[in-house]
Amino acid sequence: MIRIAIAGHGNLGRGVEAALQQNPDMELFGIFTRRSPKEIKPLTQGAKVYKLEDAAIYKDEIDVMILCGGSATDLPLQGPELAALFNTVDSFDNHAKINDYFEVMDKAAASTTSIISVGWDPGLFSINRIYFESVLPMGDSYTFWGPGISQGHSDAIRRIAGVESAVQYTIPMEDALEQVRSGRQPKLTTAQKHRRDCYVVAEEGADRARIETEIKTMPNYFAEYDTRVSFISREEFDREHRGMPHGGFVMRTGKTGMHQDSDQSIEFALKLESNPEFTAGVLVAYARAAHRLHMQGDTGAKTVFDIAPAYLSPASGHQLRGTLL
Amino acid sequence: MIRIAIAGHGNLGRGVEAALQQNPDMELFGIFTRRSPKEIKPLTQGAKVYKLEDAAIYKDEIDVMILCGGSATDLPLQGPELAALFNTVDSFDNHAKINDYFEVMDKAAASTTSIISVGWDPGLFSINRIYFESVLPMGDSYTFWGPGISQGHSDAIRRIAGVESAVQYTIPMEDALEQVRSGRQPKLTTAQKHRRDCYVVAEEGADRARIETEIKTMPNYFAEYDTRVSFISREEFDREHRGMPHGGFVMRTGKTGMHQDSDQSIEFALKLESNPEFTAGVLVAYARAAHRLHMQGDTGAKTVFDIAPAYLSPASGHQLRGTLL
Repeated sequence: MIRIAIAGHGNLGRGVEAALQQNPDMELFGIFTRRSPKEIKPLTQGAKVYKLEDAAIYKDEIDVMILCGGSATDLPLQGPELAALFNTVDSFDNHAKINDYFEVMDKAAASTTSIISVGWDPGLFSINRIYFESVLPMGDSYTFWGPGISQGHSDAIRRIAGVESAVQYTIPMEDALEQVRSGRQPKLTTAQKHRRDCYVVAEEGADRARIETEIKTMPNYFAEYDTRVSFISREEFDREHRGMPHGGFVMRTGKTGMHQDSDQSIEFALKLESNPEFTAGVLVAYARAAHRLHMQGDTGAKTVFDIAPAYLSPASGHQLRGTLL
Repeated sequence: MIRIAIAGHGNLGRGVEAALQQNPDMELFGIFTRRSPKEIKPLTQGAKVYKLEDAAIYKDEIDVMILCGGSATDLPLQGPELAALFNTVDSFDNHAKINDYFEVMDKAAASTTSIISVGWDPGLFSINRIYFESVLPMGDSYTFWGPGISQGHSDAIRRIAGVESAVQYTIPMEDALEQVRSGRQPKLTTAQKHRRDCYVVAEEGADRARIETEIKTMPNYFAEYDTRVSFISREEFDREHRGMPHGGFVMRTGKTGMHQDSDQSIEFALKLESNPEFTAGVLVAYARAAHRLHMQGDTGAKTVFDIAPAYLSPASGHQLRGTLL
């Protein structure tokens, strides 16, 4: 059994708890938290909760620590500290800073194995980008996100005066998807690929017209986009907009042949009812890989690009060749 | 420059010639053939053609030999012979015999690196199956093939008396695709997932009704399927049915969460105007991987499951993390 610990018990940490139940070669060692352990309510019967600051005590009892903190402030601090002690897997998703984070983690993981930036973007989407570009070098790649919630955009709406609650869905534009699928290799900005649908609960007596204008004219977030604003009741909000759906598409179209006369198209799509639960499933599969790589003496920081697919599966090479190849 | 040789100059070998032109870190050493070299017409200006039996002479001038023979008779013989001399990549696609072929190739590749069963199925489809099952363990996977030509089914029609030419397209059934996408996890046979569309040029005076009946009642090939037969003219056949399109879908739907209450869905799709040219692009990317693995001393037989994505790309780890992650 691979002994897994979870650092952080937000949506992602709870998703990891649930994912472990679907992986019979793994067991939950416990949950580590910066909060008081009494505040944590594990989903798993009998699960132990520890203080994060005591983690080093359990160094030899844990095979992989899955880091479920955020990329803005948690992982830059916790990542290297925990990678010095444990094999780790995390979902660091600040794209612009991945190389810096990689360097820091690579130094910290001198005798451990740390796989960073695991999930679906970065993660499965990134893997598809590299396969697509490698097998179809002459072409254009596209990423569409959604339908799904953008936390950053939802937060931006909530900061407007008179807004009680809000959620923003990023919606891929069907006509842009079709343009790409047609093989015409259009040039498309992010705004041409996505629409922004906002559901807002206004405070009583708030000026809805002003709120709508403030949303639609907010630079960078909404002004460039086809933005739609719907005011809804608190009841509808609680009933319809409490989920965490997400997903998206990675696509590449290109040409092959001596005269580039054959159109080729590749597409990868995710449709997720629960973004954190799915991300957690990816983290857990890569925890298996981290454990195996470490057993082979392959230490240091890694990304999904560095991990052969077979490491993710509990099946043997012979089984995989016989059933999935 | 990675020096590539091609063994076999059918559709796939010609596809590899074309793919090499799109990969600036590679060059064509030459084409090896069992036929008389004079019979071969390379697509590449100035390309050299050699006798396959002389291959050993060029052992030190070739980094990777891409084997473009067929799985039925060519690869079982040529594979181990050439793997003893060269790093190789091949598209062995007899699914039931892959483990046997792997063993033979692994023995032959004692000091070389041989990646077998590369292409899209086996190949990219297989990779997706392993990622999908690993990150979403509780669910069902589905493979749909087409729209595309099945060589075996086309051949079966051609053997019927009175048939001059024929081509068979395997068509994925839209309603079956929708059932899968809905997350209902239906149980579907191959016949429930695919339709078979046949275009037949009949000999003059042939009994078309009999031909149609013989096709539609042919066990294993057609009898179990929704099979449609169209008789067309030689001119229409030559104009509309000379391409080699193919493609298909790998899909998985599953559940996550402590109570399996979130539906998750993943889909990978290919739409190819030229099956051999696309397959060739995959072979060439894996030739890069074979060369690199061999430089690291990693010898023996491998499959796509054993190759980390980064090995396929000419870019460095730092570049990949900065641009594609």
